[in-house]
Amino acid sequence: MYKIGIVGGTGYTGAELLRLLANHPQVDVVAITSRSEEGKLVSDIYPSLRGHYNLRFTTPSVDELAQCDLVFFATPHGVAMDQVPELIDRGVKVVDLGADFRIKDTVEWAKWYGMDHRTPDYVAKAVYGLPEINRDVIKTAQLVANPGCYPTATQLGLIPLLEAGVIDPAHLIADAKSGVSGAGRGANVGSLLCEASESFKAYGVAGHRHLPEIKQGLQAVTDTPVGLTFVPHLVPMIRGIHSTMYATLIDTSIDLQNLFEERYKDEFFVDVMPAGSLPETRSTKGANFCRIAVYRPQGGDKVVVLSVIDNLVKGASGQAIQNMNIMLDLPENMGLTALGMMP
Amino acid sequence: MYKIGIVGGTGYTGAELLRLLANHPQVDVVAITSRSEEGKLVSDIYPSLRGHYNLRFTTPSVDELAQCDLVFFATPHGVAMDQVPELIDRGVKVVDLGADFRIKDTVEWAKWYGMDHRTPDYVAKAVYGLPEINRDVIKTAQLVANPGCYPTATQLGLIPLLEAGVIDPAHLIADAKSGVSGAGRGANVGSLLCEASESFKAYGVAGHRHLPEIKQGLQAVTDTPVGLTFVPHLVPMIRGIHSTMYATLIDTSIDLQNLFEERYKDEFFVDVMPAGSLPETRSTKGANFCRIAVYRPQGGDKVVVLSVIDNLVKGASGQAIQNMNIMLDLPENMGLTALGMMP
Amino acid sequence: MYKIGIVGGTGYTGAELLRLLANHPQVDVVAITSRSEEGKLVSDIYPSLRGHYNLRFTTPSVDELAQCDLVFFATPHGVAMDQVPELIDRGVKVVDLGADFRIKDTVEWAKWYGMDHRTPDYVAKAVYGLPEINRDVIKTAQLVANPGCYPTATQLGLIPLLEAGVIDPAHLIADAKSGVSGAGRGANVGSLLCEASESFKAYGVAGHRHLPEIKQGLQAVTDTPVGLTFVPHLVPMIRGIHSTMYATLIDTSIDLQNLFEERYKDEFFVDVMPAGSLPETRSTKGANFCRIAVYRPQGGDKVVVLSVIDNLVKGASGQAIQNMNIMLDLPENMGLTALGMMP
Amino acid sequence: MYKIGIVGGTGYTGAELLRLLANHPQVDVVAITSRSEEGKLVSDIYPSLRGHYNLRFTTPSVDELAQCDLVFFATPHGVAMDQVPELIDRGVKVVDLGADFRIKDTVEWAKWYGMDHRTPDYVAKAVYGLPEINRDVIKTAQLVANPGCYPTATQLGLIPLLEAGVIDPAHLIADAKSGVSGAGRGANVGSLLCEASESFKAYGVAGHRHLPEIKQGLQAVTDTPVGLTFVPHLVPMIRGIHSTMYATLIDTSIDLQNLFEERYKDEFFVDVMPAGSLPETRSTKGANFCRIAVYRPQGGDKVVVLSVIDNLVKGASGQAIQNMNIMLDLPENMGLTALGMMP
Repeated sequence: MYKIGIVGGTGYTGAELLRLLANHPQVDVVAITSRSEEGKLVSDIYPSLRGHYNLRFTTPSVDELAQCDLVFFATPHGVAMDQVPELIDRGVKVVDLGADFRIKDTVEWAKWYGMDHRTPDYVAKAVYGLPEINRDVIKTAQLVANPGCYPTATQLGLIPLLEAGVIDPAHLIADAKSGVSGAGRGANVGSLLCEASESFKAYGVAGHRHLPEIKQGLQAVTDTPVGLTFVPHLVPMIRGIHSTMYATLIDTSIDLQNLFEERYKDEFFVDVMPAGSLPETRSTKGANFCRIAVYRPQGGDKVVVLSVIDNLVKGASGQAIQNMNIMLDLPENMGLTALGMMP
Repeated sequence: MYKIGIVGGTGYTGAELLRLLANHPQVDVVAITSRSEEGKLVSDIYPSLRGHYNLRFTTPSVDELAQCDLVFFATPHGVAMDQVPELIDRGVKVVDLGADFRIKDTVEWAKWYGMDHRTPDYVAKAVYGLPEINRDVIKTAQLVANPGCYPTATQLGLIPLLEAGVIDPAHLIADAKSGVSGAGRGANVGSLLCEASESFKAYGVAGHRHLPEIKQGLQAVTDTPVGLTFVPHLVPMIRGIHSTMYATLIDTSIDLQNLFEERYKDEFFVDVMPAGSLPETRSTKGANFCRIAVYRPQGGDKVVVLSVIDNLVKGASGQAIQNMNIMLDLPENMGLTALGMMP
Repeated sequence: MYKIGIVGGTGYTGAELLRLLANHPQVDVVAITSRSEEGKLVSDIYPSLRGHYNLRFTTPSVDELAQCDLVFFATPHGVAMDQVPELIDRGVKVVDLGADFRIKDTVEWAKWYGMDHRTPDYVAKAVYGLPEINRDVIKTAQLVANPGCYPTATQLGLIPLLEAGVIDPAHLIADAKSGVSGAGRGANVGSLLCEASESFKAYGVAGHRHLPEIKQGLQAVTDTPVGLTFVPHLVPMIRGIHSTMYATLIDTSIDLQNLFEERYKDEFFVDVMPAGSLPETRSTKGANFCRIAVYRPQGGDKVVVLSVIDNLVKGASGQAIQNMNIMLDLPENMGLTALGMMP
Repeated sequence: MYKIGIVGGTGYTGAELLRLLANHPQVDVVAITSRSEEGKLVSDIYPSLRGHYNLRFTTPSVDELAQCDLVFFATPHGVAMDQVPELIDRGVKVVDLGADFRIKDTVEWAKWYGMDHRTPDYVAKAVYGLPEINRDVIKTAQLVANPGCYPTATQLGLIPLLEAGVIDPAHLIADAKSGVSGAGRGANVGSLLCEASESFKAYGVAGHRHLPEIKQGLQAVTDTPVGLTFVPHLVPMIRGIHSTMYATLIDTSIDLQNLFEERYKDEFFVDVMPAGSLPETRSTKGANFCRIAVYRPQGGDKVVVLSVIDNLVKGASGQAIQNMNIMLDLPENMGLTALGMMP
């Protein structure tokens, strides 16, 4: 059994790691940290964990964490950059669910995240953890930067088209929609049921932190400069991301359905649906799958890609465990075979 | 007091007409028809109307309806085209909330609606009832085709840009989202709470009936051929439409905020929000307003317009009453001054 | 036009007062106070008010407020008790939507609200503002204590039975359910969409502050000591209260349906539904109505009463305006005739 | 591997059996029947099953089903009574999730279900499948009547009190609340999102089919005649049942918390929460647990029990698999250890 630590366990991604790891046959969660809830049982915050975890939240101790085989960081940006380096230096593997190690250009990172990066050397060492794109380097990585939720859904939707060189990379549009859990468990007015339910709105239209991450990922698979307009929206539901992507075809002879099916035919967690399908976020609720459909409306020169995930699973904690399985040389889908909950 | 009839009163737009007209000081609803619920009190179907309407559903009688000053048709497409002509010929004014008289090209109409149009002459006589664009001709119209919900939100968002000639009309994108009431009160599995809540999906990606209606409206204000990709989505909420529109600027010197404010400065029901605003559908819940914000992300050549309405009010019954007020020479906002319900 | 002030305007009941008063023909809101949002436009917090109110939040000034004919207090308990007395002494009428003046026994009040009452003399002067029970004394009152939301729904449901002496007052049960807006606009974790939606729970089982208020109201209409078990629950919706009440009949010969119909036959805002009806909270959404149904399951000795209101309207701001109308000698339903929003 | 059949697989309980059995290590689902969807892939109806089940719906064939080790019936009442007997006679084990074999008194059954029972002999053979009460007889049963959802939550909440003889059985009240999935996947207007969301109502107040089932279960553990008032309500959410139960103590010296903890201390699936807890339905979402809390408000003579389950899991398909495990002599919690999904 591998020993696992979780830093920042009170948020939704921390709780989701606990839920998903509870039935993983090869790991034990031995430590979970939270400054704010120190001493409390994790099951006092998440009663769904009663009977399965007797863990209490503790304050972070590097020595304690260093005894783990792998540590997940489920912390706001700015935390992992300080705590991860020592763990890495002591040989612990790390998956950071936060944003500290995702953007290779730390000047760009500083611009979007409003602070200087204090450990840029470790950014250079980090591997971007989108297994369907980067599996080989994840296998030997010691530090994995787990992708953001919007970037996961959007990259999986656009990369096959960019790799094949059939769309114009200069004018991409991603109109993305997320459930409210993407905003975390913080007590802010905008996430109250009375503010966020029975309503729909865009946010971050002028610029959202996931924009540079998505552009970096898309740019990695094409030589032409990527131009992307990215508009996220808030959906009155708990979980789920739906990314609707628009691009102009430069090769209209391509069989789009076949392109996607071939690209993902060996991927356990990516499901290219039959032509004409309409992926629903709920088909992935609680599960580590991404479902994709591709359209060419009225046979014109526009391609529309629909991509859905559960933002807390394939968009965060599930993908983090997928990365962990790869890093620990376990079967990639171990502990991740639960199906989406419908209804 | 004007005498008003409603044909097809059991659906959501019929009920919304009753709700909104209950406190209108110049009209009386004297007849409401429904084949399926004939004889029942309207308040048995909609208990919210108890104490205000003693009306019973009756079967349509042309003679009865012909005694009305104005009749609303809140029927599925294919009904009004047969019943409206005689009323028109007998001097009754009509507002059709359905789709029968919206598309001037009846061959195109037939293609999208799957049936031939049986009274094309009346299509020619009909006026498209978007008052902010067409007010003058509505004043003297006898037959008004009330716009669809998506077309209302989308046209109000794109027309100022097209009128000003500052965007490329050939590559427009409208990524639209609607609450479930847009699907009506029919008992279909896809609209069940257990199927439609806690999920998000696109639909009609290959082609939706509102596409030709929107294109017709946009084409009317520009000489350049309009190209539009329109993708509607289903939001897990009852009411509200949010249309997110993307276009490429051909004149980047334009002050977009000023353009919209000037265009709508005399419009009671269109609210151009301050720069940086994020319109929420709930700010229009139950009210006849459209709220709009305009963005130019990262100062590039893309413009993003956000437009929200209540699909049952400004997107249907409220706009129908706005048209009625204009046709009857009443103050345009009479009976329509209620504010959006927040929370 | 009467001049109206609102103290504590940022919460949901303050916003609802603004929404409902916007179309009231005899009053002008001239002042609205908020320490936290001083200087901001009310429409910046509630965009639904854009175009109708140009008011800014100000800090409370007694001189300013004293120029009003009537002032609403929409403040947490403990605020009104200090500010109301001077206004009363200067001849201003006051409706307090908070809890400061509801409980006549200030020792009991102190026990439930965790603080001493600092102006008990004004509690003695205050009139409990449930018009269907207390209309006559409200007419001449200068200070009205507006009832709580649960107390409104529950008293209207049980009082006809107690007045008629047909149930045993010693073993009453009120199993009540409320939408999340009852918890206010405060940023607490328990009211987040991700915590409160798709779930149902009880709260305050050991004791809730509305218990003594309900008991006082019930005790006022019977000589036998009232025993009440009151369990509130949180419903995953924004608005609405449903109180399900259980009592044992001591007179099984009574015609329950007739009893309720007679009791409320002259009440505009109380709708006794036909036998066999199932009141839905949504039939009162946004409206000042209470709908009631009464059952005697299997013809036994138990009576079940179902009572629904919108907690922000008949359970708070609407009832406050109803009281204002009575106090200002205006028609009781002026500005309050809007119907519930279905769907 | 045991071979499993499912009759009536298109409804929510059928789909939930498939979801839960997908990762059960000792069973294979080899047949699933549906007349209405014959020939379709189960994953066309439930895309969440894509990649895990290649099964198509077939029409019921007794010979085919007779090759199964165990068959689940997830059918409306009236179906299993005709099809089960032959399977039983041919040695197949059966768990009926419907109502046909739950009520021992078939005259009473006929009264509530509106049809005569055609195979009363098999009712006599059937064992009521509430493992926490009946485990021993389930072990050797060939036919198990799986309890209803309300009956599961309510019996688990009241039986400890009745067994201990500390409450008066004559005046029990169960005020129960269910998510909309309890109404099934049928296309009826009342279950539409636009009808059932943002609202709350009671139903079946005059009499609900689960009333005789609950009474039978409660009567089995006490000699005093049971009197029960049962009022179910519809909650605007997909899954979850919350039963709030009220009883009068005849022995006020009892330690209620200890009574419940002792009663269920060996039960894997029943979690007695610490004193003062407020069980939330979501803590059991997707999981086979029942969480219970017990209160004595203000130290009086009333006891209030709160009991929550997921109606589709512990209230239907999960409990059916729990029964299957017992009947097949497998570990009782095999395949059922997934935790509730929070958020």
